[in-house]
Amino acid sequence: MSEQLLPKKLALPVFCSDPLSSNAYATEEILLMLSLGGLTLLHLTWWVAAAVIVLLIVVVASYRQTCHAYPNGGGAYAVAGANLGRDASLVAASALLVDYVLTVAVSVVAGVANIVAAVPTLAPHAVLVSVGLVVVLAMTNLRGVRESGTVFAIPTYGFVVCVFVMLAVGLARIAAGDAPVAESAGYGVRPEHQVTGLLLVALVLRAFASGCTALTGVEAVSNGVPHFRPPKSRNAANTLAIMGGLTVTMFAGLTALALAARIHMVDNTARLIGAPAQYQQRTVIAQLGAAVFGGQSMMFYLVQAFTAAILVLAANTAFNGFPILASILGGDGYLPRQLHRRGDRLVFSNGIVVLAGLAVLLIWAFDASTTRLIQLYIIGVFVSFTLSQWGMVRHWTTRLATLRTARGPMIRARLINGVGAVLTAVVLVVVLSTKFVHGAYIVVIAMPLLYLLMRGIRRHYDRIDRETTPSPGSTTLPARIHGVVLVSKLHEPTLRALAFARATRPSTLTAVTVQQNEDETDALVREWDRRGIPVPLKILSSPYRDITGPVLAYVKDIRVRSPRDVVCVFIPEYVVRHWWEQLLHNQSALRLKAHLLFQPGVMVTNVPWQMGTA
Amino acid sequence: MSEQLLPKKLALPVFCSDPLSSNAYATEEILLMLSLGGLTLLHLTWWVAAAVIVLLIVVVASYRQTCHAYPNGGGAYAVAGANLGRDASLVAASALLVDYVLTVAVSVVAGVANIVAAVPTLAPHAVLVSVGLVVVLAMTNLRGVRESGTVFAIPTYGFVVCVFVMLAVGLARIAAGDAPVAESAGYGVRPEHQVTGLLLVALVLRAFASGCTALTGVEAVSNGVPHFRPPKSRNAANTLAIMGGLTVTMFAGLTALALAARIHMVDNTARLIGAPAQYQQRTVIAQLGAAVFGGQSMMFYLVQAFTAAILVLAANTAFNGFPILASILGGDGYLPRQLHRRGDRLVFSNGIVVLAGLAVLLIWAFDASTTRLIQLYIIGVFVSFTLSQWGMVRHWTTRLATLRTARGPMIRARLINGVGAVLTAVVLVVVLSTKFVHGAYIVVIAMPLLYLLMRGIRRHYDRIDRETTPSPGSTTLPARIHGVVLVSKLHEPTLRALAFARATRPSTLTAVTVQQNEDETDALVREWDRRGIPVPLKILSSPYRDITGPVLAYVKDIRVRSPRDVVCVFIPEYVVRHWWEQLLHNQSALRLKAHLLFQPGVMVTNVPWQMGTA
Repeated sequence: MSEQLLPKKLALPVFCSDPLSSNAYATEEILLMLSLGGLTLLHLTWWVAAAVIVLLIVVVASYRQTCHAYPNGGGAYAVAGANLGRDASLVAASALLVDYVLTVAVSVVAGVANIVAAVPTLAPHAVLVSVGLVVVLAMTNLRGVRESGTVFAIPTYGFVVCVFVMLAVGLARIAAGDAPVAESAGYGVRPEHQVTGLLLVALVLRAFASGCTALTGVEAVSNGVPHFRPPKSRNAANTLAIMGGLTVTMFAGLTALALAARIHMVDNTARLIGAPAQYQQRTVIAQLGAAVFGGQSMMFYLVQAFTAAILVLAANTAFNGFPILASILGGDGYLPRQLHRRGDRLVFSNGIVVLAGLAVLLIWAFDASTTRLIQLYIIGVFVSFTLSQWGMVRHWTTRLATLRTARGPMIRARLINGVGAVLTAVVLVVVLSTKFVHGAYIVVIAMPLLYLLMRGIRRHYDRIDRETTPSPGSTTLPARIHGVVLVSKLHEPTLRALAFARATRPSTLTAVTVQQNEDETDALVREWDRRGIPVPLKILSSPYRDITGPVLAYVKDIRVRSPRDVVCVFIPEYVVRHWWEQLLHNQSALRLKAHLLFQPGVMVTNVPWQMGTA
Repeated sequence: MSEQLLPKKLALPVFCSDPLSSNAYATEEILLMLSLGGLTLLHLTWWVAAAVIVLLIVVVASYRQTCHAYPNGGGAYAVAGANLGRDASLVAASALLVDYVLTVAVSVVAGVANIVAAVPTLAPHAVLVSVGLVVVLAMTNLRGVRESGTVFAIPTYGFVVCVFVMLAVGLARIAAGDAPVAESAGYGVRPEHQVTGLLLVALVLRAFASGCTALTGVEAVSNGVPHFRPPKSRNAANTLAIMGGLTVTMFAGLTALALAARIHMVDNTARLIGAPAQYQQRTVIAQLGAAVFGGQSMMFYLVQAFTAAILVLAANTAFNGFPILASILGGDGYLPRQLHRRGDRLVFSNGIVVLAGLAVLLIWAFDASTTRLIQLYIIGVFVSFTLSQWGMVRHWTTRLATLRTARGPMIRARLINGVGAVLTAVVLVVVLSTKFVHGAYIVVIAMPLLYLLMRGIRRHYDRIDRETTPSPGSTTLPARIHGVVLVSKLHEPTLRALAFARATRPSTLTAVTVQQNEDETDALVREWDRRGIPVPLKILSSPYRDITGPVLAYVKDIRVRSPRDVVCVFIPEYVVRHWWEQLLHNQSALRLKAHLLFQPGVMVTNVPWQMGTA
């Protein structure tokens, strides 16, 4: 996919499955929040939905400007970094990393809710099914599938077509006077709050904040501009507009149909008046599908299948995006540099495993509840929206400062991004204040921690770079090399180490053994003499049978006597064929080596002796 | 303790806490088994106890011979090894290793049962308290306490004195016609089996097998002969006799008193007729203490405290014995050789952690039930008894073969050991057949696995020894050394590696870099030329950005062209100050090193560059 440029009709499913799939839960979340004040508040749904639609149009218009300004891809991290500086870009990166995890969790859980709506016997196992799906996604991505545009196109277009057919049939039935009636239409709702004054405002704002989930994923297109066919920016901007149009229509249509069919959603079915005890509340999509097409109809099952499929697809996009962002951050030194090497399967795998693990943790902790997970989701989305739009305002201002003519379009673009920045900032405040106690605090804690971690990592790399930058003078060569061969027994590995050490012709060469047992040492000395090994054998005493201490002391002593020389310690090493065989070998050589590496002017040479090759 | 020879009065508590503490549960287990057939079977307790006592006397007499024959310590592993060969000694070692784990589990659980008997509110938390005690024991041993004889003497003598006072007072009250009455005397017992014919025999044999727990730990004295004051063997044998006398008296006395006080023990309190629903069955010791002294008396609590203390002490002996046996097995190459270095805290700690972990697992799996754990315990004990006694028979036979005069005592000793071997073998068969399905199968599976593991480890060491034994001819020196310096960037660590490599004056010296990015490589070449580094820089291309492959190919190529030469690869290495900093550095050098060690004729030199010391 990375090699191949996408026509718009394939780019839409590839980059828009996430924002389009939000329609599966956005309306539902508004209904759920408003019902906290009872059925009387449901008439406010229109106003809340309208506000969301206005916001969506503004954000889409804003990101269209980004597509034009950053033809090489304008993710929030890049845009904030280029225009607002390092701190803003790191805040954006923290928000994006958190959101990848939540995209997986929310999308999978919402997908499973729609599977459960069609197969109610799965209801008690929603957590298990969700976790299972995350595991399947992780494993698929670990195996590394070659994705084709078709894999994206079928669920995305399938979902869009299904929803539009449902809306059309629903509206036709309303026009014919046979309005569809939802299964929950007959149930009353026991309000949780008495809604007066400020509380009413708060509730409406909460409903609006929840409805803003419709906007998640809008920025994906602006990241993906380089993958479009030329004219890239223009095609991307137009795809964004098409996506915006589809989302607005679907969201408005679903909300209207939900109100017409009198869907009554509550966050706790105990609040439903008149519902049977075993009543299982289904998703808005499922209730609409059942009301419009009939609960056992083919079309109902098709709607559920495509809804679940596009949601799972949306989760999958996070599995692609997370390693890419981690790789960019690794390249900039804000995450371990190894992450930068995207070709490295091991590194890529770690990212997928971490992403899946965190998503599973959230799903389990929040009991596979879309509504509870969404409280965490929107913060990060709006942090990156605001930073990205604000960065765009600065971008245009900078460009305008050097431009004398044709300023009109840029001033217009800046105005659009400015409105976007202000609006998304306001929404961020609304979301923060209404969602904080409902779970958003977790994100508010996690983001600064991620930010500090990334800064700490960068500080470490900067220090290393500073310390390792060569001084202008040429390096002085060490005067002499003192070879030291570590000996425990006189076996083949030792003989080989001695031979190799002698071949390097050091200035001095000594064999060193630590006495742990007098008899063994005597035997070693006798064998040494018998073989006539032309290297002096030095015996170090060790009162506590410790090897590391005496050898370190010996090496340090050489360095003290001739500070301009270098000591080269030769360590004979078994190389076994299986890792578990290594457990059977004394680790003291390993420990000694680790200590020697901390000594200045000492190098350590491993002379391997491969088992089974002698 | 290891430096100091023990007088008998301190040796007794040091080596006999385990066998003496068995009295806390041996009688109880007999009563529990017989009650499966109802109260009518309780009169058989006498016969079963008598059989256990006979067996105990025979085993004590047998081990007294071992004390004389092996003044340097005659554990089952050593005796079986010296007389029956390697396989028998490994079987004994497997049995002993399993038994150390069970000594900890059974003793701690029985100790907690006696704590719970005094503090009934702890009853629901028996598993937790037991696990906590194991953890405390493990941590105490990890810290490494210097044990004094007093630590052993107080609980051991306290327990013995308490039991004897209890027996004396109990018998005096019986004599005075005021026989103590146990709290469970009034309850009937619902039999679980109809006892007729073969089933009766089976039940009595099961009760006998359970009663044999009285013998656990008898061999400890024969292991500890070297720690006695001279005449060592004689003092040890006499201590063993004293211990035998004490155990027999206490066991007989406790059994008699339990029958007199009409203690009715069942394995499941639902089988008690007339007991209140919330009745908690207490240990035999606790019921006797309460009946003899009164349930709230000072003496009752003292009995419980000392009983719990000696049992915990018995568990502690396993924490001493396990690492010693592991060390001996490590020295013989049947366990990882590092275990042989007893001075090594790390190795010693691993043994303690493994022992504690397995004991906790058993306690948890068997719900802190002494009765259920004992089903696993006795197999290993009797396997090592039988092998040890049979080894002694062979020992005397060998000695007698070379002896012409004064054969009498040895023939007598052989007879004693022969009787011991036959009896313990018979008991082993009884125990195996009656306990197998009740849990002993776990041990029957674990022992052969341990046996195979130890043989496998030894086979590995033997192979290494064979392969590494030097051939008689002198080793040929490699013709030339080809130095290869691995370069990624031109920073201080690289410059140092180049300087050190040049100082070793190899026959040829090349710097090698793997091209991952054309711009970076070009910059490196320019910097190389600018600095005038007098080492040729070879650029290896890598289509997949992999480092290991191209370097390995390059090194192999040198070896193919000059097979008698050696390649020395110099790897510049950061040494960071904290282990977690290491996570931030590319592990590809490490991976490359691991691969290079598998190449014959290649040595790997780490040139460390210490952070913060430049």
